[in-house]
Amino acid sequence: MESARTRPSTRINRLGEEQSGSRERPHELLDSTPLATVALVRDGHPVAFPTGFARIADELVIHGSTGSRWLRALTDGASAAVSVTALDGVVVARSGFESSFRYRSAVVFGRFERVPDDQKLDYLETLMDTFIPGRVAELRSSSRKELAATMALRMPVESDNWSLKISAGWPEDPDDDVAAGAWAGLVPLTTAPDVPAHTPLPDSVRAMTGTLRNMAAHRA
Amino acid sequence: MESARTRPSTRINRLGEEQSGSRERPHELLDSTPLATVALVRDGHPVAFPTGFARIADELVIHGSTGSRWLRALTDGASAAVSVTALDGVVVARSGFESSFRYRSAVVFGRFERVPDDQKLDYLETLMDTFIPGRVAELRSSSRKELAATMALRMPVESDNWSLKISAGWPEDPDDDVAAGAWAGLVPLTTAPDVPAHTPLPDSVRAMTGTLRNMAAHRA
Repeated sequence: MESARTRPSTRINRLGEEQSGSRERPHELLDSTPLATVALVRDGHPVAFPTGFARIADELVIHGSTGSRWLRALTDGASAAVSVTALDGVVVARSGFESSFRYRSAVVFGRFERVPDDQKLDYLETLMDTFIPGRVAELRSSSRKELAATMALRMPVESDNWSLKISAGWPEDPDDDVAAGAWAGLVPLTTAPDVPAHTPLPDSVRAMTGTLRNMAAHRA
Repeated sequence: MESARTRPSTRINRLGEEQSGSRERPHELLDSTPLATVALVRDGHPVAFPTGFARIADELVIHGSTGSRWLRALTDGASAAVSVTALDGVVVARSGFESSFRYRSAVVFGRFERVPDDQKLDYLETLMDTFIPGRVAELRSSSRKELAATMALRMPVESDNWSLKISAGWPEDPDDDVAAGAWAGLVPLTTAPDVPAHTPLPDSVRAMTGTLRNMAAHRA
């Protein structure tokens, strides 16, 4: 079906989802979050590591301790799949079948290489200024010991070593379900990141959510 | 070093990060988000697929089209690493080296099995009621055709087939850097998911961020 070097099909089969045009690049999504999940193969099994990253020009850059086993596996040439996902909301359709998530997802495939020592400081400072814009100018210089303990890795984001999936549509409910008059819409996922799981939604907010639903219904 | 069936070390080496005790289970993190990234091996290379999931009792459950190639690879017995990550903020230390992310990350390792047909409806309804609590009671029943086109997959979350990493600490700046009097703290990541990348922060919000910094400085 496909060669060992070919990445898998990423076509979306579900209704209501839209695959982006092949010319759209993943850069905007890559620039919207510092969090990637790097998958690699160890002893024949998949492993996954979340990590901070930045797109710098046409490279995907990560960094970490020179003692890190998984980073050393990457610099030793391990094949990697770097996944970046933004979950934008829940698409509430008129049936369970058509309900889905609104999301954007990129996966970049390839191998990382270690950034040479004479370029490392530049890469690390660009990473820092991506994570915290303007921060490098506020900080003392990195010590030689700190630099020696840190490595930066880069992987090219080329014309064809990535997939991009964007689910941005509305539910494509069958005519019968639409005719039945039920509501459909989008619920954005915006719980603050410091809210513990299972924290109950206050009654006032619950009521407001009802209001928003009505607003959406009136607009549609 | 390790057998082919052993998962990799997940020890965190960076200062300022804290590995959770081995008795803490990943359940709370798994319950806090519906988004997982499933990594598997195809033709010797890693591939990764973001997907909605729910923890149901001690199982991790996903679902999708019966025509999905990657889901069929899983039901055919492919080894999987399921990664769930919450990014809670940026830890701003007094040096680049000590700066880091505050995050929680779980990876569950194992194989999925297809949920038998006589249990499928239960699983799909529980998934739906996890994604949209109370939704099943509001919906028409799934049609036979819809059920036939959908499969559910489950993987046990056992006592030892997962890793949990929690970075919840403050920067552990060296004494010299603390004595130098620079500010350090945490910046929560709370940009709304529907804000396009590169949208500039308004001046008023930028000013408020300064105020918050001062508040934090005063409290410390």
